[in-house]
Amino acid sequence: MNTHLDIAIVGCGLIGRKRATQLAGGRLVMACDLDRARADQLAALVPGCRATADLGDALRSSAQVVIVATANHALAPLALAAIQAGKHVLIEKPGAIRASELETLAAEAEARGVCVRIGYNHRFHPALRKARELIDGGAIGELMFLRGRYGHGGRLGYEKEWRADPKLSGGGELIDQGVHLIDLAQWFLGDFASVEGHATTSFWQMPVDDNAFLNLRTAAGQTAWLQVSCTEWKNLFSLEIYGRTGKLHIEGLGGSYGVERLSFYKMLPVMGPPETTIFEFPRGDDSWRLEMAEFLEDIRLHRTPRPGLREGLATLRVVETIYRTSGYL
Amino acid sequence: MNTHLDIAIVGCGLIGRKRATQLAGGRLVMACDLDRARADQLAALVPGCRATADLGDALRSSAQVVIVATANHALAPLALAAIQAGKHVLIEKPGAIRASELETLAAEAEARGVCVRIGYNHRFHPALRKARELIDGGAIGELMFLRGRYGHGGRLGYEKEWRADPKLSGGGELIDQGVHLIDLAQWFLGDFASVEGHATTSFWQMPVDDNAFLNLRTAAGQTAWLQVSCTEWKNLFSLEIYGRTGKLHIEGLGGSYGVERLSFYKMLPVMGPPETTIFEFPRGDDSWRLEMAEFLEDIRLHRTPRPGLREGLATLRVVETIYRTSGYL
Amino acid sequence: MNTHLDIAIVGCGLIGRKRATQLAGGRLVMACDLDRARADQLAALVPGCRATADLGDALRSSAQVVIVATANHALAPLALAAIQAGKHVLIEKPGAIRASELETLAAEAEARGVCVRIGYNHRFHPALRKARELIDGGAIGELMFLRGRYGHGGRLGYEKEWRADPKLSGGGELIDQGVHLIDLAQWFLGDFASVEGHATTSFWQMPVDDNAFLNLRTAAGQTAWLQVSCTEWKNLFSLEIYGRTGKLHIEGLGGSYGVERLSFYKMLPVMGPPETTIFEFPRGDDSWRLEMAEFLEDIRLHRTPRPGLREGLATLRVVETIYRTSGYL
Amino acid sequence: MNTHLDIAIVGCGLIGRKRATQLAGGRLVMACDLDRARADQLAALVPGCRATADLGDALRSSAQVVIVATANHALAPLALAAIQAGKHVLIEKPGAIRASELETLAAEAEARGVCVRIGYNHRFHPALRKARELIDGGAIGELMFLRGRYGHGGRLGYEKEWRADPKLSGGGELIDQGVHLIDLAQWFLGDFASVEGHATTSFWQMPVDDNAFLNLRTAAGQTAWLQVSCTEWKNLFSLEIYGRTGKLHIEGLGGSYGVERLSFYKMLPVMGPPETTIFEFPRGDDSWRLEMAEFLEDIRLHRTPRPGLREGLATLRVVETIYRTSGYL
Repeated sequence: MNTHLDIAIVGCGLIGRKRATQLAGGRLVMACDLDRARADQLAALVPGCRATADLGDALRSSAQVVIVATANHALAPLALAAIQAGKHVLIEKPGAIRASELETLAAEAEARGVCVRIGYNHRFHPALRKARELIDGGAIGELMFLRGRYGHGGRLGYEKEWRADPKLSGGGELIDQGVHLIDLAQWFLGDFASVEGHATTSFWQMPVDDNAFLNLRTAAGQTAWLQVSCTEWKNLFSLEIYGRTGKLHIEGLGGSYGVERLSFYKMLPVMGPPETTIFEFPRGDDSWRLEMAEFLEDIRLHRTPRPGLREGLATLRVVETIYRTSGYL
Repeated sequence: MNTHLDIAIVGCGLIGRKRATQLAGGRLVMACDLDRARADQLAALVPGCRATADLGDALRSSAQVVIVATANHALAPLALAAIQAGKHVLIEKPGAIRASELETLAAEAEARGVCVRIGYNHRFHPALRKARELIDGGAIGELMFLRGRYGHGGRLGYEKEWRADPKLSGGGELIDQGVHLIDLAQWFLGDFASVEGHATTSFWQMPVDDNAFLNLRTAAGQTAWLQVSCTEWKNLFSLEIYGRTGKLHIEGLGGSYGVERLSFYKMLPVMGPPETTIFEFPRGDDSWRLEMAEFLEDIRLHRTPRPGLREGLATLRVVETIYRTSGYL
Repeated sequence: MNTHLDIAIVGCGLIGRKRATQLAGGRLVMACDLDRARADQLAALVPGCRATADLGDALRSSAQVVIVATANHALAPLALAAIQAGKHVLIEKPGAIRASELETLAAEAEARGVCVRIGYNHRFHPALRKARELIDGGAIGELMFLRGRYGHGGRLGYEKEWRADPKLSGGGELIDQGVHLIDLAQWFLGDFASVEGHATTSFWQMPVDDNAFLNLRTAAGQTAWLQVSCTEWKNLFSLEIYGRTGKLHIEGLGGSYGVERLSFYKMLPVMGPPETTIFEFPRGDDSWRLEMAEFLEDIRLHRTPRPGLREGLATLRVVETIYRTSGYL
Repeated sequence: MNTHLDIAIVGCGLIGRKRATQLAGGRLVMACDLDRARADQLAALVPGCRATADLGDALRSSAQVVIVATANHALAPLALAAIQAGKHVLIEKPGAIRASELETLAAEAEARGVCVRIGYNHRFHPALRKARELIDGGAIGELMFLRGRYGHGGRLGYEKEWRADPKLSGGGELIDQGVHLIDLAQWFLGDFASVEGHATTSFWQMPVDDNAFLNLRTAAGQTAWLQVSCTEWKNLFSLEIYGRTGKLHIEGLGGSYGVERLSFYKMLPVMGPPETTIFEFPRGDDSWRLEMAEFLEDIRLHRTPRPGLREGLATLRVVETIYRTSGYL
């Protein structure tokens, strides 16, 4: 039973508020934001939750778990403070703006014996869970390669948002949506031994990338062929996974990305058109709740969260390689 | 009027027979194949057409135009003989198995003043013609990048076909379907200044590639992000073209590739979801006839065919770079 | 300019609140509901709007226009009072629970010289406007017949809502969603000379219909073949219109009904597969605002609203015929 | 084992030739057609098969089974002769042009103890077999109603084909494609106690119907709401089956009707959007072979074929009712 764990949320914006409603039995005791009004607003949603603008206050609370849900640049420093205060921490993706920050967190977390999870919630989307289950059951055989495309079309003024300021965001589209694709790719294929590709700023008047193209390969030669874009005028999520005996295609994430669906193409020994079964998930996405439930279970079992600091670090190293290659770092 | 041009077909397999029915007013006078029975079979389709197993016979005929439709390795040598005999030549894609062969053809064609076209018929598919027309009309603004995916799932015994023998084919999936994507990419974006990527043999037991991943960039920094596969279990053709004010998405080529369609996503100044219009082309593909009509017109106007040797050469250079990088050459 | 018209809303539930935000330049001056709290809530949305639980109060206000947005049984009595007070009235569909009530309203409206519109907003959905425009332009030739399907899957407790109580609703699915299909059918085909069909209660434990099947025919023999359901487990809107030279297919209404789209199938003189163009409308539905703008224009021009009492009456007569045939009346 | 049954085909047109390749182990011994050339052509396809223009010849052969695959008007007379010669008979749908003919066949078949099947092959399409299996397994609960739409767009000269001549066809679209929908409807819902609807000639200049609208109800009040058309410009097959806990939707029949698919919408106890699984059948349709296998098994087991004369009769009675109502009879 996880119901007794107390939770503090640091960063009370959109994501923080979303987390507050998806605590999977955890009890929200503190809402913390430099902007006290936002903290108050979030605290008002949950009986018994206090608001504060003072991180120390939050860390001195009864919370055993801290969720850090701020703009990218503040993620790692806040998480570090929480770890040093002995808290288990869920840090929103990408966890930090530089890989080296996650190394520091890893060392501290190990020293304190606390669990740290990175909030790559896409792993918990229903189509992706189903894909994982099919692959683990051998449905498409040994994996050969995958293709991922992910993007949105921005919005008026996008180039003026915090995401467009590298000091706050650490980068553009690649560190925003791209990290989800990298994380999913390594979930399915494992570690990448080779990183090629580039990022560009093609449209938005901003000093960070709006498109990135990634060619990642495992030691065994499996390719993750990924492209992310915030000039993807029609919102898109697509992940195609190829095994020796079939293909899985995940599309949509609900809402403006379209109904989430998984298409399963199964080759027959005689070859020809594959047997096709399509699973649709119109009931929405419970990824946030499931991710938190998994984290509470990690804590209960003293288990290393996956994706945790190790996976988050691998992802940020890919990002840094591309940014360095492309002149953004 | 092109109706007076006489045509010889060299290579009477599947493609040769298809060409014979799509001559756009040209008159088939000779069918030539080392396998005389196949030549006879094709000649029987067209009143007044003679069959031969002797290339010299075909080249001494009244034909002003020769179509070379053989396995890859014979394309360039046969085209060279035809050019040297003063014929205009349509060579099926890829035109040769090595770029250097096309250089030789180019020099000879220039010397003789004959027209040479490479049979990249995809440019004449209805969705691609419509895409070209929309782009030329400014419908999506200046182009930023494109993504192409093309593939099929092979068939039993695929690894034993001539395409799997590098001496006959010059390579695998990249030189087979991949060249279409490269040709389309350069049609839309122009010349590529940078070629990265790799080819792999992931599934089929053959000494050529079954998958290729291409990252091509123009001098202006526009990326063509291409992937081709003959482990694409569900047949697929997809080309997504991104401009500053919209996106075009071509899918399907008819038949087992699905209904050919073009989706046009037009951004509004207020942004948000794009205006969407989808054109479907269920009436099949008249690309072969239109391509031939264009070639007859090239000849009539003494016009350099496009795509001709220049474009075919550029495409094969991309192929060779990837093959060299990946250890196939 | 319609900006000077003052508007009162009577009935401050979901629909009333939606209307309040879509007044197309009209100014909301009164929000009236028997439940004063709901009236207050709505009034609070609009500066200068007063709340009242007293209809007389609303009718004595400066409002020249009254919107009646209550449960079905109250629509006609409230509209009658408004008409008698000399107001122009927009009554939500179906306008009344019995046709005879609309006859009374028609007589009074004529006597007072006021405009009365029935809120069949579906006519203003973008795909339906586009369909109308194409048909008026001759795109599919003379109309032959149409098929309509419309439905939803209810929700837990649906049989206990006011819609399930015939005293409040006047009937079930037919008088709820069915009237939209009937109204659209008569918009495209004209008056119906023959009414056949039946309604059933197949699933929900309620004294009203949950499914209705309508076979309506014009004097010229064009059929409207309609089916509506609140056991339509996957929400559905589909209207297929057949002309002598093409077909239009409207699907989706946004949200849980799927993206709104219009498919246009155009026959060529040679026949075979039709030329196909699909228009999607992902930007949502501005039908409420456009309907109100049209009504304000009706008033300005002293024009009979369409659909008005005449069309609303025709629709309710179809409903009554089916209900009588099926034993609900 | 059925491999020893000898088969004669009477009527060597398109359908006869198709049957010849789908005999499920039966051995074709005779091909019979008034047009001897067509008989020869079919016989040439099968080693050991003889051709004849004389029915008596065919009936005196070793064939234990006769397939009657002619224009509608000749089906019943030829089947009668075959039955009287003691043969088991598969008659193509609709089996006769009038119900009374099937009554005669039924009496004779019973007297002779032979099996008679009507070739309603749609029951053997993969999506329909899967639908039947799901329904039998309780996947969507007790059936409430179904909707069927089926049609094509004709072709140039359609009004001059034999199908347009009531003496040869017995009627138009209703007796052509309509009977398939009626047969499927009764397969799922059982006998119809009430038959309403009408047929029309809306487009084609012919004395038979090109559209029919059917409202069929079982004694238990389940509705089959069917529409068939040969002015269905875009070829369409759609059957929607509603149960108390879900919906099945069959679409497409392959080829120009689109990929065959079955969508399964399963309601959850909490209601809301249904769980959705879509099965696609891109490998084509083996309905003809499966139907013949079933018939050979009927014969082996002395089992009454279903659909046989009883079901064929019920279907033709529906047709006659509609034709009488609509003035075609």
